Amino acid sequence: MKARLEALLEAVAAGTVSPASALDQLRHLPVENIGDARIDHHRALRSGRAEVVLASHKTAAQVVAIAERLALAQGGFLCTRINAEQGAALAARFPAVQINDVARTAWLPVNPPVPVLGSVAVVTAGTSDIPVAEEAAVVAQAFGARVVRVFDAGVAGLHRILAARPEFDGVDVVIVVAGMEGALPSVVGGLIGKPVIAVPTSVGYGASFGGIAALLGMLNSCAEGVTVVNIDNGFGAAAAAARILSLGIDRP
Amino acid sequence: MKARLEALLEAVAAGTVSPASALDQLRHLPVENIGDARIDHHRALRSGRAEVVLASHKTAAQVVAIAERLALAQGGFLCTRINAEQGAALAARFPAVQINDVARTAWLPVNPPVPVLGSVAVVTAGTSDIPVAEEAAVVAQAFGARVVRVFDAGVAGLHRILAARPEFDGVDVVIVVAGMEGALPSVVGGLIGKPVIAVPTSVGYGASFGGIAALLGMLNSCAEGVTVVNIDNGFGAAAAAARILSLGIDRP
Amino acid sequence: MKARLEALLEAVAAGTVSPASALDQLRHLPVENIGDARIDHHRALRSGRAEVVLASHKTAAQVVAIAERLALAQGGFLCTRINAEQGAALAARFPAVQINDVARTAWLPVNPPVPVLGSVAVVTAGTSDIPVAEEAAVVAQAFGARVVRVFDAGVAGLHRILAARPEFDGVDVVIVVAGMEGALPSVVGGLIGKPVIAVPTSVGYGASFGGIAALLGMLNSCAEGVTVVNIDNGFGAAAAAARILSLGIDRP
Amino acid sequence: MKARLEALLEAVAAGTVSPASALDQLRHLPVENIGDARIDHHRALRSGRAEVVLASHKTAAQVVAIAERLALAQGGFLCTRINAEQGAALAARFPAVQINDVARTAWLPVNPPVPVLGSVAVVTAGTSDIPVAEEAAVVAQAFGARVVRVFDAGVAGLHRILAARPEFDGVDVVIVVAGMEGALPSVVGGLIGKPVIAVPTSVGYGASFGGIAALLGMLNSCAEGVTVVNIDNGFGAAAAAARILSLGIDRP
Amino acid sequence: MKARLEALLEAVAAGTVSPASALDQLRHLPVENIGDARIDHHRALRSGRAEVVLASHKTAAQVVAIAERLALAQGGFLCTRINAEQGAALAARFPAVQINDVARTAWLPVNPPVPVLGSVAVVTAGTSDIPVAEEAAVVAQAFGARVVRVFDAGVAGLHRILAARPEFDGVDVVIVVAGMEGALPSVVGGLIGKPVIAVPTSVGYGASFGGIAALLGMLNSCAEGVTVVNIDNGFGAAAAAARILSLGIDRP
Amino acid sequence: MKARLEALLEAVAAGTVSPASALDQLRHLPVENIGDARIDHHRALRSGRAEVVLASHKTAAQVVAIAERLALAQGGFLCTRINAEQGAALAARFPAVQINDVARTAWLPVNPPVPVLGSVAVVTAGTSDIPVAEEAAVVAQAFGARVVRVFDAGVAGLHRILAARPEFDGVDVVIVVAGMEGALPSVVGGLIGKPVIAVPTSVGYGASFGGIAALLGMLNSCAEGVTVVNIDNGFGAAAAAARILSLGIDRP
Amino acid sequence: MKARLEALLEAVAAGTVSPASALDQLRHLPVENIGDARIDHHRALRSGRAEVVLASHKTAAQVVAIAERLALAQGGFLCTRINAEQGAALAARFPAVQINDVARTAWLPVNPPVPVLGSVAVVTAGTSDIPVAEEAAVVAQAFGARVVRVFDAGVAGLHRILAARPEFDGVDVVIVVAGMEGALPSVVGGLIGKPVIAVPTSVGYGASFGGIAALLGMLNSCAEGVTVVNIDNGFGAAAAAARILSLGIDRP
Amino acid sequence: MKARLEALLEAVAAGTVSPASALDQLRHLPVENIGDARIDHHRALRSGRAEVVLASHKTAAQVVAIAERLALAQGGFLCTRINAEQGAALAARFPAVQINDVARTAWLPVNPPVPVLGSVAVVTAGTSDIPVAEEAAVVAQAFGARVVRVFDAGVAGLHRILAARPEFDGVDVVIVVAGMEGALPSVVGGLIGKPVIAVPTSVGYGASFGGIAALLGMLNSCAEGVTVVNIDNGFGAAAAAARILSLGIDRP
Repeated sequence: MKARLEALLEAVAAGTVSPASALDQLRHLPVENIGDARIDHHRALRSGRAEVVLASHKTAAQVVAIAERLALAQGGFLCTRINAEQGAALAARFPAVQINDVARTAWLPVNPPVPVLGSVAVVTAGTSDIPVAEEAAVVAQAFGARVVRVFDAGVAGLHRILAARPEFDGVDVVIVVAGMEGALPSVVGGLIGKPVIAVPTSVGYGASFGGIAALLGMLNSCAEGVTVVNIDNGFGAAAAAARILSLGIDRP
Repeated sequence: MKARLEALLEAVAAGTVSPASALDQLRHLPVENIGDARIDHHRALRSGRAEVVLASHKTAAQVVAIAERLALAQGGFLCTRINAEQGAALAARFPAVQINDVARTAWLPVNPPVPVLGSVAVVTAGTSDIPVAEEAAVVAQAFGARVVRVFDAGVAGLHRILAARPEFDGVDVVIVVAGMEGALPSVVGGLIGKPVIAVPTSVGYGASFGGIAALLGMLNSCAEGVTVVNIDNGFGAAAAAARILSLGIDRP
Repeated sequence: MKARLEALLEAVAAGTVSPASALDQLRHLPVENIGDARIDHHRALRSGRAEVVLASHKTAAQVVAIAERLALAQGGFLCTRINAEQGAALAARFPAVQINDVARTAWLPVNPPVPVLGSVAVVTAGTSDIPVAEEAAVVAQAFGARVVRVFDAGVAGLHRILAARPEFDGVDVVIVVAGMEGALPSVVGGLIGKPVIAVPTSVGYGASFGGIAALLGMLNSCAEGVTVVNIDNGFGAAAAAARILSLGIDRP
Repeated sequence: MKARLEALLEAVAAGTVSPASALDQLRHLPVENIGDARIDHHRALRSGRAEVVLASHKTAAQVVAIAERLALAQGGFLCTRINAEQGAALAARFPAVQINDVARTAWLPVNPPVPVLGSVAVVTAGTSDIPVAEEAAVVAQAFGARVVRVFDAGVAGLHRILAARPEFDGVDVVIVVAGMEGALPSVVGGLIGKPVIAVPTSVGYGASFGGIAALLGMLNSCAEGVTVVNIDNGFGAAAAAARILSLGIDRP
Repeated sequence: MKARLEALLEAVAAGTVSPASALDQLRHLPVENIGDARIDHHRALRSGRAEVVLASHKTAAQVVAIAERLALAQGGFLCTRINAEQGAALAARFPAVQINDVARTAWLPVNPPVPVLGSVAVVTAGTSDIPVAEEAAVVAQAFGARVVRVFDAGVAGLHRILAARPEFDGVDVVIVVAGMEGALPSVVGGLIGKPVIAVPTSVGYGASFGGIAALLGMLNSCAEGVTVVNIDNGFGAAAAAARILSLGIDRP
Repeated sequence: MKARLEALLEAVAAGTVSPASALDQLRHLPVENIGDARIDHHRALRSGRAEVVLASHKTAAQVVAIAERLALAQGGFLCTRINAEQGAALAARFPAVQINDVARTAWLPVNPPVPVLGSVAVVTAGTSDIPVAEEAAVVAQAFGARVVRVFDAGVAGLHRILAARPEFDGVDVVIVVAGMEGALPSVVGGLIGKPVIAVPTSVGYGASFGGIAALLGMLNSCAEGVTVVNIDNGFGAAAAAARILSLGIDRP
Repeated sequence: MKARLEALLEAVAAGTVSPASALDQLRHLPVENIGDARIDHHRALRSGRAEVVLASHKTAAQVVAIAERLALAQGGFLCTRINAEQGAALAARFPAVQINDVARTAWLPVNPPVPVLGSVAVVTAGTSDIPVAEEAAVVAQAFGARVVRVFDAGVAGLHRILAARPEFDGVDVVIVVAGMEGALPSVVGGLIGKPVIAVPTSVGYGASFGGIAALLGMLNSCAEGVTVVNIDNGFGAAAAAARILSLGIDRP
Repeated sequence: MKARLEALLEAVAAGTVSPASALDQLRHLPVENIGDARIDHHRALRSGRAEVVLASHKTAAQVVAIAERLALAQGGFLCTRINAEQGAALAARFPAVQINDVARTAWLPVNPPVPVLGSVAVVTAGTSDIPVAEEAAVVAQAFGARVVRVFDAGVAGLHRILAARPEFDGVDVVIVVAGMEGALPSVVGGLIGKPVIAVPTSVGYGASFGGIAALLGMLNSCAEGVTVVNIDNGFGAAAAAARILSLGIDRP
C-alpha cells in the first residue's frame, strides 16, 4: 500500500493528479491488515472521524496493539466498553490516556485537539442511565462537541426537566438517554426544535425486557423528529450527533 | 331458585334468619341460566356493581335477550362493544336507552339513578384514543362516578397537560388513556398523588404492535403507583375506578 | 432554595401569601441536588408520600448518603431492593432501622408514625412469591396501611383461598401476588368487590418466561376491575394501594 | 393396493398367515392416492380411530370427494372446520350427515355406531369459548365418548364451577376450554384427579394475543397433571381424550 | 384440625356418618400450616396421588422439614429439582431415600409400595434430554407406573425409533421428551394410538430459545392426539400419565 | 385567545413588552380547541415547523375542517396518510393543493414558500419502498429541503448504490428507506459521513414480520452514526432531517 | 448503455479487448432504468440466472411492461406471486406463456431451453403446502432442473415418506416444504446425504404463528446439513437449488 | 450386530447378495449402543460423512469414550464445542489430535485423508464472528473441503469485501458468518452466483437479541438463493457445504 501511496503523492506533486482526485483515490484504498482485524485508517477521510475501538471481546493485549497502531497513524485513539484490565493496560502504555470508569472509555486526544464543531446536551431520565450517557458524552467530546450534562430529569417529576431546560435550550443536538418507559425523548422533542437522538437503556425491571420497552417507547414517540439508536448505544448516539455537527463545518 | 329465595326471605321475615346472614347466603346463590350464558344477578351484591354485557361475538337478538333479563332483574343495563346493528335493536326495544357511538355503549340507567360515589377524570394523549376513553367515561358514569374529560393532552406538547391540570386536580381517580409510547400516565402520576389507572390503546403504527409499546411503557412507568389494565380496556379501567370509589361509601 | 423557602414562609407569616398558595408553590420548587441523584423532598407534598430509595445499582456508601439526607429532611426513610452489604451499612449508621431480609427492605419509620389510613391484604399464590409480597407489605405499612398477610393460597387448591377469605374480606385493598399462570387475581377479584392490584412474579419454569405468563394472565383477567403492575413490583403495588387509601384521608 | 389386500386376506384364510401377522402388515400398507391428498384408510388400524377431514383450505368439491372415499371405506366420516358452502355440499350429497354450525363439523356416523368407550366432560370458561368446545364435543362423541357439557363456568364467578362439579365429577376425562387468562384448567385440575386436557382459545382482547396468554397460562398451570393442546384445537383435545378412553377397551 | 379429624372418625365409627360422607368431608379439610408453606395432606384423597415437593428455591433445612412432615403423614415422599446439598441432607436424615442425580429427585417410597397401575414409556430424542426424562421416569414410578426407557431415538436417524418400537408398543402411555425441533412426538404419535404426552426440553442452540422451538413444534404436531406440558416439565408429564393410569383402577 | 394575542401585540407595539419576551410568551400560549382535536398553531414557533395533519382515523370532513384552520392560521398545510376520499375532499376545497397518490400526501404550500434550508437524499432499496420514501420526500420538501431521489438501489446489486453515489454525495442528510433485511443504511452509512436516517418498511414476506426484521437490522447497523425511526415512518424521518437542516439557518 | 455495449463489442471484435475482459466489464455495467424499477439484465452474467419478476405490489400493466423488456433482452421471463389479473394480462400479451394457478407463476421459457443441470425433488408434508412447493417446482424447472414432486408425506404417517423414498433418492437436491411443526426436513435429512433445503410454510393454526413454529423447527433441525429459507419462500429455495446445480456445469 | 454384519458380508462374498444390495442393507442396520448414547457408525454410508461429536453437556470422560469408539470404527473423529478440559483429555489420549482453541474443535483426521471434494470460502463480517467461522472452517476441512478464510469484511466498509472478492470468486461454496444486522450474505449473494450459506452469530448488543436480528436479516435477504442455518451454527453450515461438495464426487 505504501508504494501506491508514494506513487499517488508523487503524481500530485508532479501536477499530474489534482489534490481533489488524490483525496478521492485515498478514500478507496485498502485497509491495513494486522492479524485478524483490519484497521481502517482512511475512515477519517470518508466520514470525518477516526476509527473507534470497541474493546469488548478483545484481550487487553489486543486492545493495546490496536491502540498503538491508531496512535501512530492518527495521533490518538478512543476505546469504548473497556474493562478494568484493558484500562490498566492502556494507562500503563499511554500515560496521557484519559480513563473514564463510568463511561468505560479510554481516550487519548489528538494534538492539536479536534476543533469544536458545536454543542451537544446529554440528558438522562434517571441515575442508572448515567453510564450510557457518559459514554455518549466522552465520544461526543472526542468527536469535537462541547457537552452539557443534564442527569436525573425523568418525566415523573416534570419540574426537573422544565427547570433544566435553559441548560440545553441553546445546544445544537440533544441526546436523551432513558430506560424504563423511555418517555423523556417525547417530552424533550416537544419542548425544543433541535435534533433529538434517543438512546434506550437496559435499565428497568420485569417487563422492561432489557430495554425493549424503552426502545419501543422511543420508536413510537408522539414527538415528531426523534430518531433512535440501539439499546445502551451511547457511542452510536454520539457518532450520529457528530455527523450532524460536521455539517456545519462544511458550510461557509 | 325462586323457591329458595322465597324460603330465605320468609325466614328473614320470620326472624329465624338475620338480614346479614341472608345477604351472605344470597351472595352465593347459583346464577340464572338462559341458554348458553349464565347471568349473575347477584354480582351486584358481591361487587357492588351490576353485570355488564360484552356485546362482541353476540348476535343482536342475543344482546337484546340478555338486556331484557337484566332490565327486569336490575332495572337497567349497560352493554359495551356494541355494533350498529346491536345498537339499533336495543334502541328499538328500549326507547330510553342511551347509545354512545364513539364509546360503542348502550346504557339504560336504573331509576332512581346510582348515587354519585366520587369523581373520575378520563385523560387521553391523542384524539385517536377517544373511543377507548369514552367507553371508560360511560362505564364510570354508569357505576356512579362524576366524569371529567380531558382529551388530546399528550406529552409532546407538555403545555397541554399542564394547562389541563386544574381540571383533574380535584378528582378522586384519574384514568389515563394513551397509545404510541404510552408516556402520559408517568407524567400524570408524577403531577398528582391520586390513584392513576393507565389504559394502553392500540393506536399507533409500525413498532407500536397494536398497543404493546404503550402497554410496556405503562408497566415500566417511572412514576410510582400507576396501575395498568389491558390494551383498549376502557371498561376495565372504569370498573377498577368504581371499586376504589365504592370504598368511600362503606365509610361513615 | 433555602432563601426562597424563607421568603415564602415569611410572606405566609406576614399574611401576604395564603397557606394554600404557599403549599401550591412548594409543590413546584426545584429538587435538591446531591451529586448525580436529585432528591425530591417535596414529593411528599405532591403525592402524600415520601421518596423511596431503590437501592439496586447503588453502592452501600451511596445508599447511606441518600438515607442520611432523607432522614434529615423527612425524619425517616425506606429503601427497597437492598443487598446484604447495603443492609449492614444502613444498620451500622441507623441503629433503629428495620431490615427485612425476605422483603429486601430497610425502613426507618418517621416519628410520630404515619397515621393508619386503612388496611391492605397481601395474598400470594405460592411460597416462592413471598419475597415480592413482603416488599409490598413493608412498603404498604410504611405508607400507612395495616397489613394482613395470606400466603400460599393458589388456585390449584381452591379450598385454601376460600378458607382464607374471612381474613381479607374486611380490608380496603387486596394486593395479589402470583407467578406461574397468574390466575389468583381473577379468583380474588370475583370473590370480593374491593380494589384488587395484581403483581405478577418471575416465579416459574419453562414457558413462564420470567413472569410474562403471569403478567399476561393478569392483564387478561376475566374478573373486571383488576389492575396490574410490573413483574415483581411489590413496591409499585403498595404505592398504588397507598394512593387509594390516601383518598379516605381527604374526606370529612 | 386392492390386489395386495386380497392376497393377504386369502393367505389368512388359507392359514398361511396368522391374523395377528396380517393386522401387522395392514398397518403399514401404503395410503390411497386421490390426486394431491393421500387418504390413510388404515389409520383406524394403527390408532383405533378413522381419519378426520380438516376442511379448511379445501374446496367444497374436494371435501365431498374425500368424504365419499371415506364413506365408502369406513362407512362414515367426520369433517371439521367446515364453512357454510362445504356444509351445504355435504348435506346435499349425504342426507344423513349431521351438520353442527357452532362446532363447524359435519359428521356421518358409522353404522353400527362406535361403541361407547367412556365419558368426557367439556367445560368452558365463557360463552365465547363454546365453538371450540362444541368441536371437541362432536369429535369426542364420534370417537366413542359420552359427552357432558358444562359451559360458562369461568373462575371470576367461582360458585359456577363449584356448583357444576357434580356434573363432571364422574367422567373419565375433562376437556377445559378457556380464553383470556386461561385459569380454569388449574382450578379444575385442583378439584379432581382425572386427566385434564386444556384448550386455549383465541378469545380475548388486547394482550391476549390471539390465545397466547391463555396458552401460557395453561402451560404454567400450578395444578399438576394438566396437559395442553394448540390454540382453538378442540379436535386435538378430543383426539387425545379418545386415545385415553381407548386404553380402557384393551383391558379385560 | 386433629380435633376435627377425631370427631369425624368417631362419627364414622358410631355410624352417624357414612364412610363415603366422611371421605367427602376429608377432601375439603383445611391444609396443614407449617410456617410459610401449607402442606396439603389430603391431595392424595382428591387426586389419588401424594403431594410432591418442588425443592427449588428452598433451603436444605426447609426441604428436610417438609419431607419429615410428609413421611409422617404419608409414609414416604418425593422431592424434585433437588440440588446436591438438599440431596445430602435428605440422605442423612432418611437413609432409605433413593437419590437420582440425573433426575435430581429424592424418593422415599411408601411401604407397602403403591400398586402398579400400568406402564409408561419414556422416550428421548437425544442424550441431552435424559435428565428431564429421568425426572419423568422416577415420578411415574413413584406414582405407580412400570417404566420403559427408550433414549436417544431422534428423528434424524429414523431407524432408531423404528427399531425401538417394540419396546414401547405395549405400554399404556408414552412420554416423549425432545429439544431442538421437537419432532419426535409427531412421529411417535403417528406410529401408535396410545396417549402421547410431549415434553419440550430447553436443549438446543441459537434459535431454539430455551425450548420454545420444541414447544411450538409439539403444539403444532401434525399427529392428532398429542398433548404437551411445559418446557423441561418431566414431573408434569408423569403426573398427567398417572392421572390416566389411575382411570384403570377405578374400573371393575 | 385572540384577545390575549391582541393585548400582547399591543404591549409590544407600546414598547412595554420586548419582542423577545413576546415571542417567548407566544411559545407557551394554549392551543386552539376545535372539537376533540387541539391544533397547535405555535408549534411553528417552538419547533420551526408547522403542524402536520395525520389523516388516518379521521373523516374527510374532519380533515377538511382542520386543513381550513391551518390554511387560515399558517397560509398552507400538509396532510399525510390521506385516502382517496380525503384527497378528493381536499382538492375540491383547495384547488391549489398538491395531491401525491404514491406518498398519500396533500400539500398546500405556504406563500411565499419556505426558504430552502439544505438538501436531502431519499434512497430506497427496492421499488416497494417507494411509497414510504415519497412521503419522506414530500414532507422534507414542505419543510424546506431540496430533495434528491435514488430508488431501487438495494445491496443485492451493489453496483446500483455505488453508481448512484454521486447523486447523494453532496447532500446534507440521507434518508434510507428499506424493507426485508434493511441492510442498505449500513452500506450508505459506510460510504459517506453525513447524517443517515434509516426508515424500515413493512415490505417483505414471512419472517420479515411487517418490518421488524428491517427495524432490527437498522438498529444493529455496523455503520456508526445511523439513527432509526419507526416502521414506515417516512414523515418522521423527514421531520428529523428538517430539524438537522434548521440548525444551519440559526447560524450566521 | 447501448452505445457502451456496441463500443465494447467492437473492441472485442477488433481484438483490442479480450473476451474475458469484456465479460468482466459487462458484469459491472449499470442496470437499465425503466421508470421506478431498474432491470438488471446482466444478473444472468453474474449469477448464471436471469432476473425473476416478483409481481406482488405491482399493477398488471407494470408487470407486462417489465415482462416485455425481459422477453426482449433474455428471450423469456418468469414472474412469481402473480394474481389472476396479472396472469390474464400476461397471457393476453404472450400467448406462449405458461400460467400455473397453484404456483401463481407465469413462465415464458427461453428458446432454446435452458439445458438441464440436474434434478430436484420437491417434497411436502401436507396438501396445504402444495402452492409453495409448486412455486419452487416451477422456478427450479425454469432454472434448469428436472423436478420430482412428492406431496403429502408428513411425519405423522411415516410410511408415506419411507414409501416415497425411492422417488427422491436419486435426485441432486431435495427441497422440503412443511408447515405446522416443520419436522419433515429433519427426517429427510436423516434419510439421505444430499443437500436439503427446508421451506417453512405459513400453514397451521393457533401457535403456528404464520409459519414461525415451522421455521424454528427447521432451524433447530437435529439432522445436520439442512439449510432454511424464509417462510413460504418457494422461489428462494429453488434459486438456492439452482446455484447448487450450476456448480456441476462449471466442471469438466 | 456383528453377527448380522458377518452374515451379510459372507453372503456378498458368496454372490448371493449383490454389493449394491448389501450397501442398502447396511444403511439401515441398528446403531451401536454405548450406555446412553447410540453411535451411528453407518451414518457415513448414508450421508457420506462420519458422525461428529457435540461435546457440550458431556463430561471429558464421556467425550473421550465416544472418541475412542469413533477412532476405532472410523479411524478418526471430530469433536465440536469442546471446552478446555475436554480438549486436554482428548490431547492426552490422542497425541495426533488437532485442537483448535478458537474453533473449539478437536480433530483426528482419518488416514488416508478424506479426498478433497472442492473448495469453500468462509467469510466473516467482523472479528467477533471468527470463532463461529473457524468452527465452520475446521468442519469443512474435515469433510473434504479446501478452505479459504476472508475475515473482517463487513458492509460498513464496502471496499473490504470488494477487495476480497478475488479470494472467494473461484470457490464452490461460500459460508458467510455475520452478527449485528447480518447484511453481508445479501451483498455476497449479489456479487457471485455460487451457493451462499449464511450463519447468523450471537455477536451484537441491545436489540440484536443474541443473533435474532442477524437471523431475520439473513432470512429476509434480498439476494436470491441465500440459505440460512441456526445462530452460531458453524458446524451446520459446513455440513451443508459438504453435502453440496459431495454431489460433485458422484458425477463422472
